[in-house]
Order: sequence, then C-alpha cells, then structure tokens
Amino acid sequence: MTVRVAVNGYGTIGKRVADAVAAQQDMVLVGVSKTRPNYEADRAVAKGYKLFIAGEGKKSEFDAAGIATAGTVPEMLQQADVVVDAAPEKIGRENLKLYDAANIRAIFQGGEKAAIAEASFNALGNYPRSKGKRRVRVVSCNTTGLSRAASVLTSRWGVESWEATIVRRAADPAESGRGPINGIMPTFTLPSHHGPDVQTIFPDLSIATTAVVVPTTLMHVHVNHVRLKTAPPGAQAVVEAFRETPRFHVFSAWEHVDGTPQVMEFAKDRARGGSDMMEGVLWENGIRVDGRELYFFQAIHQESIVVPENVDAIRAMFDLAPDARTSIAITDRALGIGH
Amino acid sequence: MTVRVAVNGYGTIGKRVADAVAAQQDMVLVGVSKTRPNYEADRAVAKGYKLFIAGEGKKSEFDAAGIATAGTVPEMLQQADVVVDAAPEKIGRENLKLYDAANIRAIFQGGEKAAIAEASFNALGNYPRSKGKRRVRVVSCNTTGLSRAASVLTSRWGVESWEATIVRRAADPAESGRGPINGIMPTFTLPSHHGPDVQTIFPDLSIATTAVVVPTTLMHVHVNHVRLKTAPPGAQAVVEAFRETPRFHVFSAWEHVDGTPQVMEFAKDRARGGSDMMEGVLWENGIRVDGRELYFFQAIHQESIVVPENVDAIRAMFDLAPDARTSIAITDRALGIGH
Amino acid sequence: MTVRVAVNGYGTIGKRVADAVAAQQDMVLVGVSKTRPNYEADRAVAKGYKLFIAGEGKKSEFDAAGIATAGTVPEMLQQADVVVDAAPEKIGRENLKLYDAANIRAIFQGGEKAAIAEASFNALGNYPRSKGKRRVRVVSCNTTGLSRAASVLTSRWGVESWEATIVRRAADPAESGRGPINGIMPTFTLPSHHGPDVQTIFPDLSIATTAVVVPTTLMHVHVNHVRLKTAPPGAQAVVEAFRETPRFHVFSAWEHVDGTPQVMEFAKDRARGGSDMMEGVLWENGIRVDGRELYFFQAIHQESIVVPENVDAIRAMFDLAPDARTSIAITDRALGIGH
Amino acid sequence: MTVRVAVNGYGTIGKRVADAVAAQQDMVLVGVSKTRPNYEADRAVAKGYKLFIAGEGKKSEFDAAGIATAGTVPEMLQQADVVVDAAPEKIGRENLKLYDAANIRAIFQGGEKAAIAEASFNALGNYPRSKGKRRVRVVSCNTTGLSRAASVLTSRWGVESWEATIVRRAADPAESGRGPINGIMPTFTLPSHHGPDVQTIFPDLSIATTAVVVPTTLMHVHVNHVRLKTAPPGAQAVVEAFRETPRFHVFSAWEHVDGTPQVMEFAKDRARGGSDMMEGVLWENGIRVDGRELYFFQAIHQESIVVPENVDAIRAMFDLAPDARTSIAITDRALGIGH
Repeated sequence: MTVRVAVNGYGTIGKRVADAVAAQQDMVLVGVSKTRPNYEADRAVAKGYKLFIAGEGKKSEFDAAGIATAGTVPEMLQQADVVVDAAPEKIGRENLKLYDAANIRAIFQGGEKAAIAEASFNALGNYPRSKGKRRVRVVSCNTTGLSRAASVLTSRWGVESWEATIVRRAADPAESGRGPINGIMPTFTLPSHHGPDVQTIFPDLSIATTAVVVPTTLMHVHVNHVRLKTAPPGAQAVVEAFRETPRFHVFSAWEHVDGTPQVMEFAKDRARGGSDMMEGVLWENGIRVDGRELYFFQAIHQESIVVPENVDAIRAMFDLAPDARTSIAITDRALGIGH
Repeated sequence: MTVRVAVNGYGTIGKRVADAVAAQQDMVLVGVSKTRPNYEADRAVAKGYKLFIAGEGKKSEFDAAGIATAGTVPEMLQQADVVVDAAPEKIGRENLKLYDAANIRAIFQGGEKAAIAEASFNALGNYPRSKGKRRVRVVSCNTTGLSRAASVLTSRWGVESWEATIVRRAADPAESGRGPINGIMPTFTLPSHHGPDVQTIFPDLSIATTAVVVPTTLMHVHVNHVRLKTAPPGAQAVVEAFRETPRFHVFSAWEHVDGTPQVMEFAKDRARGGSDMMEGVLWENGIRVDGRELYFFQAIHQESIVVPENVDAIRAMFDLAPDARTSIAITDRALGIGH
Repeated sequence: MTVRVAVNGYGTIGKRVADAVAAQQDMVLVGVSKTRPNYEADRAVAKGYKLFIAGEGKKSEFDAAGIATAGTVPEMLQQADVVVDAAPEKIGRENLKLYDAANIRAIFQGGEKAAIAEASFNALGNYPRSKGKRRVRVVSCNTTGLSRAASVLTSRWGVESWEATIVRRAADPAESGRGPINGIMPTFTLPSHHGPDVQTIFPDLSIATTAVVVPTTLMHVHVNHVRLKTAPPGAQAVVEAFRETPRFHVFSAWEHVDGTPQVMEFAKDRARGGSDMMEGVLWENGIRVDGRELYFFQAIHQESIVVPENVDAIRAMFDLAPDARTSIAITDRALGIGH
Repeated sequence: MTVRVAVNGYGTIGKRVADAVAAQQDMVLVGVSKTRPNYEADRAVAKGYKLFIAGEGKKSEFDAAGIATAGTVPEMLQQADVVVDAAPEKIGRENLKLYDAANIRAIFQGGEKAAIAEASFNALGNYPRSKGKRRVRVVSCNTTGLSRAASVLTSRWGVESWEATIVRRAADPAESGRGPINGIMPTFTLPSHHGPDVQTIFPDLSIATTAVVVPTTLMHVHVNHVRLKTAPPGAQAVVEAFRETPRFHVFSAWEHVDGTPQVMEFAKDRARGGSDMMEGVLWENGIRVDGRELYFFQAIHQESIVVPENVDAIRAMFDLAPDARTSIAITDRALGIGH
C-alpha cells in the first residue's frame, strides 16, 4: 500500500516533512500548500512538488511571481489519504473543519492541544497507540526530545523522578522579527507545560519542567536531572544505552563539540537533509551518574527533530509497519539518520 | 574607628566597590589601582580617587594620557588597613604575596578558591564567621544570590534539597571580545561548582546545581526547585518572606517586568549607583508553591550583587557593627538599596 | 516666565524628557501620562510626577496596582502651556486632535512626518526657526546626530557632499520582543529617509544615506564620508572642532573605548541622567582627513540624544533664551552634559 | 592532466575547498591536514579523505580518538602538485617554508598579505594573471565580493568612484568564543584595508571602503554607492547584468528574503554544498539607479564565497582551461552553483 500524503503549510516544519515523505517508498507526496509566494514556495516548485493555495491566498499573487499552482487546499485534500497539518499554532485547530469536510485523516503538530487528536505520538515512546487512528498529534520538539530520552531510561533503570530545565532558543533562524536580542526571559508557568505534555506519551512518568527563553536561534538545550529507580553501572552504561538507541547522537569529548554552534556545524559538515540534526544530541562528558542520580544535557534542533516522527506517525496510523523499531529503521534509512 | 581601604584592580567589580566604600562613614578609600590608563582610570581620577599603578603598569603610559598617578600598589597598601582584591581571576592569588609582604588584611573575590581565605563570606548567610579574620573571600555573584535565598528559606521552612539551573550571561556588557554570539554552551562539570561553593556558606545545605552559558550580557537567571522541610502556607508567604528581607527585590505581575531587559531598564530608571541592581531579583508570578515544593526564578546582576557584600565583609573583619542586620542596614542606606 | 510642560507618553523618550524638564528652572512639569500601569508608571509616581491616564487606559487598572492617578490626558493638557508628545509612532498624529481641542502648543518626535509641524528642530542646526511656533517637531535620534555634525562642518569648512551609512540598533534595550537575534537586515529604501530628514534642518545640504539593521540594543553607529569645500588643516583640527562644540564627546585612543559597549559602560561610570549618553560620540582615532575628504564614525544613543533637544525646543517656542548657545548651555548645565 | 591537490588546514575554508576539489574531474584530492582530532577530522575520514598531521599535532592524540592518519604534512606535500593553504591567518606565511622545501606550488588565502604571492586572484576579475604562477593568493571573502561586482560594473558602464561600507559578521557560526554579543565595533582604519585589497585585482579602480563589526555569525553585508562613468538605462538593466553573470544570486521582492537570515534559510532549502551560498547575494529591491549613481547591497557568505575561486585559481595556475568563463562554468557545474 502507498499512502497519499498532503502537507498543509510549507514553512519550517512543513517543508522538512514534505522532503521526508517524498523520500519514503511506502508514501507519495501529493502536494504542499502555501498562503503566499515566497522563496520557500519557489523551492517547492523547483523540487517538483505540487503547490496548492492555502487560506486567504490569491492565485493572482502566485501568478505574478511566476509560481505555478495546482489548485486550493480542499482540492489537495481530495487527492490524499492523510494530511500533515504544519500550519502555524492555532491555525491547526481551524483547519480541522477542512479535514472533517474532506473526510480525511490528519496529523497535527505539538503546537496544538492534545485534545485535538485521539492520540499524541512519539515513535520510541508509544508507537502502537496511534494504530488505526484518524487524528494523531506529533508532540512538540522539546516533548519529543524528552520522550525519546524517557523511553531509554524507563525501560532500562526506571525513573523515580525527573527535573528538566528547558533553555529555549527564542526564534527559528529565519524568524528575524523575534527577540530578545539581549536578555533572558523566564517562562512564568511553573512548572512549565512540557512536563504534562510528556505525560501524554508516558502517563505515569513523574516529571517537572521549567523553562527560560534565551537569545539564540540554533537549538534548545535541556538540563536534566533524573533520579532512577535502580543505579546504572556507571556513566558509560548510560552513554551506551543512548548510543544503541536510534535517533540519538552522543558526541565524544575529543570531538570538541563545545555547544550548539558546533553541533550545527557538524550537521552542516554531514550535509544531509538540509543540515538538520534530527537526532537528540548528548555529550559523553555531559552525562554524569552518581548512584541513582543521573545528570545529562540534551540539545534539540527545533526545526527538524519532529520530522521523522511525522513519518512514523503516518506509518502507525495506516499500519504500514509491524512495530516502532521497523518503522524507525525504514524512516531513518530513507533520511540518512545514523546513530 | 575608620578603616582605611585600598581597592586593588579598578574594573567591573573594583570600581563599584570603590564607590561603595567611599560612601560609607566608617571607611575611607585610600586609593584604587590600574595597570594601564583607559576610560575607567579617567573616571577614577575625575571622582577624586588616588590612582596607583598595578602590576607591570608603566607611569610613562599614564603620564602620556594625562592621568595623574599616586605611586604603585605596594605604596597604596602601606596606607591601608585592608585591601579589597578585585583583580582578574587567578591574579588574586598572585597578589597574596604582596599582601603578605605589606602585612595587610585582604578580601578576595569569588573567582579565587575558598582555600585562599580563612572564611568565605555572605552577609545574610554567615556574617559572624569573618569577625576578626585577616583573609576573607566574598563568594561569587551566583553563589551570593543562592546564599541570600538560602538564608531566607532555611530559617523559615528548612531546606530538604535544592536544585538550581544557572543560566549564565556569557560576558559583562563591556567585554566585547567574548562570545558566543549565537548558541548555548553547556557547562560540562556536573553538578556545577556553584553547589559546593554555596556550601562554603551553608555547610549542611543539600544543593545541586547545573549551568549553561547563553549569549546575553545583562544578568544571570537561576531556575530554582527547592524541597522545603515544612510547607509554607502558600506562595504569598514566600513572596512576603523575600520582600521583608534586605537585598531582594520582588516584582509584581502588573509591573510587566517580563525578563532581564526590563529589570535592567528598571535599574536605569531608578538611576542609583550607576544603574546597578544589587538586590537579588524575584518575580511574584515567578514563585510557585505546591506543598513542600517551591519553584522560583532569581535574576542576578553579575556586576554589582557582591558590592554591598564587600562592604559588609570589611565591617565584619574589623568588628565595626554588632551584627549582620546592622551592617547591612548601614551599607544599604549609604548605597540607596531599597527593598 | 515659567513654562508649564506636560509629557504625553511615559516610555523610552517621554520618561527622559520628563526628568529633563523637571531639572530646568524656567519650566515646570505638570504631569506625565501612561495607558496602563507598569514599572515605569511606578517610577513616575516615586519621583513625585503627577500621572494622568492616556488613551484607552482604565483608572481601575491603576487603582488595582496601587498607582495613584491625577486624571486623564485632556485634564493634564488644561494645566499646561505646551505638551511634549512622546507617544509611539503614528499615535502622535492622532493626538494632534487632542492638542487642537485643548488649544495647546505641542512638540512632536521624529517618528512623525515633518508636515505635522510648522518647523523641524535641532538646537545647533536651526534653533531660531522655532521661535514663536505652536507646532514643532524634534527630529529623530539619527537625524539629530547628523544635524549636529552638519552644524560643525558646514560652518567651518563647508560640505560639498555627504555619504552616511547608518548601522542601526534593532531594538531599544527593553524591547525584548524585537529581533533579529542573528542577522543583518538591509533597509531597502535607497537612499534611506534620513538624508531628506536632515534637509528639514539643513535644506541645502547634499547628503545621501543608507541603512542596515543589526542585532544590538545599545547604540546606532554612523559611518560618514564627507567631501568638504575646503580642506581642514588636518584631522586634529576636526577633533578640536567637535570638542569645542557642545553635545559631542570625542574619545581618545588611550581610553580604549573600542565600540558601543564601552561607550555605554563609560556612560554608566559617569552615572548621570540614568546612564545616558546625550552627546554624539566620536573617536579621535575614528576621524581621518585626506585633503577635502573626511571620514568619521559617530555613535548615537537612540534613547537619549533627543532629550536636550526637546528642552531647547520649548525654550525656542516660548522665546525663553536669546539664542541657541544660551539655551544649550542652560540645558546642559541642568542635565550635567559635559563636553 | 589531473592536478594533485593537498589542502593544508581543514577548518572553515579548508574543508569546503577539499570538498570542492574532490568534485572536479581535472583534480584529485591527495589529502587534508589537521593539528588535532575533532569532529571535523572525523568527518574528513568519514568522507574518505586521507588525513595528515599538521604542525605540532601528535599521532598519539589521533590514535586515542580512533582517527586514522596517513602521515605528516611534509609527506602530504610530496604527493601533491599544489597545496591550498587554509591555515589560520599568519600561519600561512610560516607554512611558506614548508612549501619551498617541498618545491611545490601553493595557493594562499586572503588573510595573508598580497606580497606572499606572485598574483592575487579573482576568477571574474583577473583569471589570466595567475597562469603558470607558482604562488597565488585568493583574495578574502569581502574582497572577492567586491571584485566580482567590480567586474560587472567596470565592463559595462565604467566606475568613476566607489564607496562601500562593510558591515562585518563578528565570527563564523562555530567560533563560539568570539564577541561582541551586544554592540557595534568600528574598524578604526579609515578607509579600511578592503579598498586597497580590491586594487590588487583592479589596480585602477577608485574605491574607498569603511567597516564596522556587528554581532552576527551569518554573512557580511556591503552597502555600496558607485558613481558610474555612464548611466545605465535603469535599475532593471543592472539587475539583468548581475543575473547574467555567474556567481551572483539576485533575489526578487516577492521572495520575501528580508535579510541575511532568510538568505541562509534559502541556502539550506537548496541543500547544496553544505548549505553554502557561494554566490554574491543581491536584492532586486536593493538596487537603485539615479542617473550615474548606483546604490546596492551585497551579502557575502564569509565561509564559502572563496571556495570556487580556489578551484579556479588551481585551473589558472596549471592552465587547465582556456579562459575564466570556461573554468567558472566547469567549477560551478561540479559544485551545483546556479545563477
């Protein structure tokens, strides 16, 4: 079976999901959508994607720019089995009416509330739960990173309690209008919403999170302190556990990857999938075990970490793979995600 | 008694300590020192401070700039009862020989190791311990903020355990050579050195800290999660506890102080002591109590928070005040620190 | 005669103008206005300023915050001879109706178009032109800096042509919502609007300007290349010309003020008027003369450079001083602006 | 003939030149060098490049990291016809002795002084001059951008005079130690060294440049004002001239590429050559013609713009192509540079 996939919204996440879907053998990309012409629309057409007009968009504007269009979003939906909604926050829930009208399955992103869907999704965390579902929500970038790590730790040593401070990048690289330029902005929701969001994947996990926003565009960084139920034999055992799990990349000390700037440089040098880092990033020298106490940093590439998750979510909904590991392996091979 | 104070090193901390000492009635500033002429040296002279030449500095360079000098550091030390060492990190321990030679008491900053002094000092935390001492170390800006908060919490509800993530500004405002410009740099010492440093003030406190460096010059922000021994009646009780303690400033939600940029703007508007914020900064809506669990943010003005502590340390060493509260009140009145 | 002054809008510019007016002996500040309570409103009341409610503001909100108010803007206007409009861009022109209704003189800021007023104003440039006027516009921070410099150069050597690239700070320090965080944004109006704006002060000046926006909050920097009509005897003559003109500060090389971070640190150390730098800032080693060709940098503190100009504009409108130099001297003495 | 090329120094420029050389059919990459193991060394080996140990580097360090090495730099040089020196500034001139000893041809980067080589090189500007030369210097990123533009303008309309302000990014993306974080740093050499450097390519060009450093890592931006000898028919003619010349990319207004963040996003979306932008970047709405006066912005990707120039320089030295256009076409096809 080949699932026909539409991507509604061709921005930071949507353009990456479109590329990822187009790279799968069991899926076909029927089109992408955009409200107005810009350099991203131009790239979509250059890649051979059919471009449909979203929302209030006007064909005349696309025509004036010389960007070929293939119809409107409702027309795109008619050709698809599932739509990946990658519209800006809050627009997703408005789009829901369109998807109901088209009688089409839909995947939402983590900017939408959990209640919008039948299940929240993380491939390592709870793949089977989305089997056969019609509305699935792929959790946000930070929740994805935390959930992946939770799947490693809960299965091996158990988690008694988890504290994470999320140091958030303030804007995506091309969001040039957003600040702050110089300053730290606390998130005054205490604990932050990320903990409960992880619990949509791991309902029994005891986790409390806090957050601050800082002036960088590259990656989020999580500072994790976990009290495990049983003590790992040592830090090296934890390093190995992450290294043998897909979708993690653990840097060694000798690599001199001192922070997020070097992680992004590594991703560029690897030159794969548009310089993205779809793995959660850990550092060997950023993992410390003291009895049952585990400290570790994880860096999250906000623009791309959820991309393979969207692919796996489609596979789960349509039962295209027997289990999570199989789907992950297929996705990662197609996207060149190593581990 | 009037204590004669020399300030060795007239940079970010030293120039502020000099102003603070000059404002006290029980102290007299005998001079400050600098290695080479620059705009800060010019300001020192404009303020009427005697300027002595430090280290490898050359009188001819000062003469060429038209900056009057009053001798060398050894000469300055002969006129003083105590020297506040505000030299860059690691230089302090070299200066120790000079102070030994001059047979003079000395205060070091938190960049030096605890072993350099007979006692580490925080006014609210352990004032009496420095009475009569000859070598005292004022703990660093982050440790000062944590220690002040610890004095509030341990005395009222007791602290079972404390977790803090320290989101550090990467450079002082005028340190234009330091980065990162865009990125987050984890501190790979896990837990970070700040916890043990707080224990030089509160030896029995159970505290674990972690740190990241972010591209801002304004303030550090601490994200604290404390498990208290007894539950406070509610968040408002914690707010009140901080509000009634000197050297804290708690912003209300209606003030719309959303982060460190607005804190610094407030400090400028208050226009006191060179736009500094010598208080630890909390937010009413950034304090959350859930049973014995307490979450709160504290912002730390790295350039000035230790300044009143240096003044109190002198008073403790020379027994100029009967207790911490009295010294703090005298210092704060002279410096215009409200609460 | 004592002129009664109201300041409508108590933000970045308004709060500084209010302080500056309150410091003049021939003026009295009748009040300031604000739409909603925040930390700035709190400071206004702490300083003893009467606070009036602007626009859609609600008394109940101020009451809830415990901020005393003295009425609404129309009531404030009735007590004043002149209002300084310091509202956000575009609001100024709406406020015009209020001022017409109150039959009150008004000063607008440079964010408004020149046509809003009978004259555009710069103290060194064209003080006499605003004598007796009812509507005057103080030109923007960048135009003020260029106009001040033009008054120095046109009067001494004449200007044949002037090229300036304006490297603009992207946001004020407390505007934490604005970006970019990492990037340079060209201003696609070529030449930029600043040249014509300078011509509202110097109608015959041949000047062409260009602009880019960069991720800093501290100061703008102008890169000037002027072809003079006659060659100065050398760079030192130009240095002296700026040094002997009020409202310029020229740093010497030995001061090691390497850029805008050190300029702001100098302003803090000088601790005057809220750490502001109301002078145009030049560098001795940033001035180069080659025959009739003059190159120089000028840094502009966007938050404060127009503040003394507003004071002088009032004096010009009400004929409180015989000429520009007298008014400037009075203003600068009151504000502590040295030169 | 196939030229054997060694790349000495595998950092920001060297790693890109190595990839570019490896992609040419008339060249073979014999190896690259590095002083110590890090993530870049790991990538080099992963790509199949032979890695040689440079300078004070120790084989034991590479061995410990599991990074295979193939010898030392002198050994690498023995296998090559030409070495591209991509060492940090000033190291290049030290390396010269090695190249003399190995009796090998060499290309230096623009960080070295012009006198190090027999010719300075820019493909569009002066390709033939490097024919048969043994020592060639590829000019720096900013000089390359200016020289490419000069080749367009001088050949079509002639240049009477050229003013450029160079707004420089302060650090490369992974140079996390460099600032400033918040501020603008003027370059006090007036005019800056870039003008004379362009004259190593266009000796008769009348050009004066100035520079400031700003807190961004993405790209430099030049603000150009050129007085042409003859007036172009209009701005569109200039747009077309740049569009029909290789190694320029001109964005249209409808693409909404508002600044350097969007240029870099475009480069990522194009996903070619490690997300680089080897073309000089112009904006249709950032080009203005007024008679003989031409204003335009050009953005320069500091990490990659010189990469194709290094390839062409090799081809010129060894006479592998009949002329510049042929070499450029071969290089650009291999690297996927469109225009």
